[in-house]
Amino acid sequence: MIKVSVTYPNTPNARFDHDYYRDKHMPMVKAKMGDTCKYYTVDRGIAGAAPGTPPTYIGMCHIFCDSVEAFQSGFGPHAREILADIPNYTDLSPVLQISEVEVG
Amino acid sequence: MIKVSVTYPNTPNARFDHDYYRDKHMPMVKAKMGDTCKYYTVDRGIAGAAPGTPPTYIGMCHIFCDSVEAFQSGFGPHAREILADIPNYTDLSPVLQISEVEVG
Repeated sequence: MIKVSVTYPNTPNARFDHDYYRDKHMPMVKAKMGDTCKYYTVDRGIAGAAPGTPPTYIGMCHIFCDSVEAFQSGFGPHAREILADIPNYTDLSPVLQISEVEVG
Repeated sequence: MIKVSVTYPNTPNARFDHDYYRDKHMPMVKAKMGDTCKYYTVDRGIAGAAPGTPPTYIGMCHIFCDSVEAFQSGFGPHAREILADIPNYTDLSPVLQISEVEVG
């Protein structure tokens, strides 16, 4: 299984609506991707290594799929719509990473 | 619930023994932390946004705990031993982030 991590690098005064991201954006992504997204998780960054220090990422999601090809087939056809929703919750640009799940 | 993400930023020619990390290091961390670590996951970075591009992180783990205090109480007393094991699998330095799990 692979996971696609979509991470939003934190900056001072960044805008990020965690409620919208959790309650509107990610359910929309799941609905568009259908079964190609087996499940997803959502994180809200609260600190760096020590409490009180800023987190590297203010928000993240991780989309779990059977394969890179499954992700591409599920996400690709809806990419334009999904990306167009980003300004509704943040002024940051996401960074993507694809990982193999070694322990899930 | 919170997750502590321990991420290893990728560099050209970095050394990272994924087998040791998955089979030796992380089980040792879990054994030291006991029930303060509810569970953990391990990722092996395979690509950036597009297949064939390098991942931001060559390896990651995510340690799930009831609270930041639970993580600190479980990890802190063993930090020296755990950190001393790092050279056995990599020449990279980890970056930590603490997140609140919004969707788990």
